Amino acid sequence: MSAESDLLAALRGLATHPAARGLLDDAAVLEVGGETLVLTHDTIVEGVHFLHDDPPGDVAWKLVAVNLSDIAAKGAHPLGVLMSYSLRHDAAWDAAFVAGLAEALVAFGIALLGGDTVSLPPSAPRSFGLTLIGTASGPVPSRSGARPGDLIWLSGTVGDAHAGLRIAKHEREGADALLERYRLPRPRLEAGQRLAPLVSAMMDVSDGVLLDAQRLADASGVRAVIDLDSVPLSDAYLEFAGDDRGARLSAATAGDDYELLFTAPHARAEEILKLSDALGLPLNRIGSIEKGSGIAVRDRGEEIELPPNLGYEHH
Amino acid sequence: MSAESDLLAALRGLATHPAARGLLDDAAVLEVGGETLVLTHDTIVEGVHFLHDDPPGDVAWKLVAVNLSDIAAKGAHPLGVLMSYSLRHDAAWDAAFVAGLAEALVAFGIALLGGDTVSLPPSAPRSFGLTLIGTASGPVPSRSGARPGDLIWLSGTVGDAHAGLRIAKHEREGADALLERYRLPRPRLEAGQRLAPLVSAMMDVSDGVLLDAQRLADASGVRAVIDLDSVPLSDAYLEFAGDDRGARLSAATAGDDYELLFTAPHARAEEILKLSDALGLPLNRIGSIEKGSGIAVRDRGEEIELPPNLGYEHH
Repeated sequence: MSAESDLLAALRGLATHPAARGLLDDAAVLEVGGETLVLTHDTIVEGVHFLHDDPPGDVAWKLVAVNLSDIAAKGAHPLGVLMSYSLRHDAAWDAAFVAGLAEALVAFGIALLGGDTVSLPPSAPRSFGLTLIGTASGPVPSRSGARPGDLIWLSGTVGDAHAGLRIAKHEREGADALLERYRLPRPRLEAGQRLAPLVSAMMDVSDGVLLDAQRLADASGVRAVIDLDSVPLSDAYLEFAGDDRGARLSAATAGDDYELLFTAPHARAEEILKLSDALGLPLNRIGSIEKGSGIAVRDRGEEIELPPNLGYEHH
Repeated sequence: MSAESDLLAALRGLATHPAARGLLDDAAVLEVGGETLVLTHDTIVEGVHFLHDDPPGDVAWKLVAVNLSDIAAKGAHPLGVLMSYSLRHDAAWDAAFVAGLAEALVAFGIALLGGDTVSLPPSAPRSFGLTLIGTASGPVPSRSGARPGDLIWLSGTVGDAHAGLRIAKHEREGADALLERYRLPRPRLEAGQRLAPLVSAMMDVSDGVLLDAQRLADASGVRAVIDLDSVPLSDAYLEFAGDDRGARLSAATAGDDYELLFTAPHARAEEILKLSDALGLPLNRIGSIEKGSGIAVRDRGEEIELPPNLGYEHH
């Protein structure tokens, strides 16, 4: 057991309130009066979740977007945020961050409600926390509702953001669209809201499709079978990485996609495809749920060996 | 203008939602459905808000307590928390922190709802964020309601925690009770809940009575006059620091007290004193509100020069 898994086990032991969902979900779901509140908190750290030379406005956008992605997976409507801001006494950086924050708040119609500023020593990496509060007007999907026979679906394309990270780190040249997917993720809010009544389980993909599908399967007590050749890739990604099995496995184990991974009974497939058309957002079947546990990956119908890392755990 | 005041001004420009109270209050007050939610977030940083060698369980207690103190000042009832935890891969430290966290959550009847863990490089100070969500069933006091003629009141005693900090830093010897006031602050939740219908303005004292009274006066557009000789000091503090004007000014400008500072019309004085008896908690009149602006300090009826620092701003 690592120090982290020990800590998480200890915290789960404390989180006995049903609203905490055992700390196994993307967000807390708290009934207050007649309302269903959805609450999430993500902290992003320089050098871990963003790069030292990422534009400050993009860092602010990402801070908002990664939290919104958790709310999207619950089908909820965001209301407002509380922010924890680490001051490094760099007025130009702060001003650019606030401009990006303003843009994100306006884009998603959410309010800045409060927070805290703390001064860090110059040796410490910048670090920003955001708590997002939203409300749900209907069912709130969890990770644990997948049932044998369900299909596994994915919104959008994956792999782009990780390719963008490699471009940002000057490891490779590549399309601006990939860099943008890394720096300015688009949380799938409307899709999440409209999918919530149709799905049996839903989560956002932040650490890799295979790792997150395994988490969903574990939470549901089932087995996830992913059809690698069905995982959708963008033209920009295919140009960047090619179309062989290695490129596909790389996309399915890359982080920072912030797409929605969800399961639904066969009978919902037609509605989901109609919703895809209505939203102009690809919603693709990428596998199926079986009895059992863990995850399997198939390529053109044939089961293949799992890669050594199913995803990217950047805590 | 410092980088920090520039940043705060920019953030206030964004925080136009009435729930944000212009970022000038201890907490956000958000109406959702028929409920009044009170939300606050405080981050504490090693070397700034706690010491490297403070016991980890006490750090956890303080993290919860400083957030509860904000909720107390709103007269609200706490429901649950989301925590941001910086991992430094020190399992013994983590376990002791979680034990202290469990103690605090049980003591105040609040639920751990969610949060995030992030890994920090070993060179970075530990840093913990907590978002606390509560509900208010009656009026929610702000800082801005003080009116000329109101009396200024303070719960408990001040100066103890700062004396405790000096003991913790081995600068001085002193009573264990002072050290405990520094490490294990007691948020005045019940007092805040029962005072809320009686007060015209209320806030918690975290940065010094004089500085916080000035903030309350500024938010209310009035002048605060503090009677230094009425500011209550504990026996342990008097033994530690003496009873001259310097010792009293030191107590009135010290941080980390987490008492309640509030104003109320004269007509409420009898009710407040009865409440003090019922709670077994000193509630003392320490001054009065006048027309004008800023703050004045009197000692035995005579106005004295303001100290160079009115409080302790530890961001």
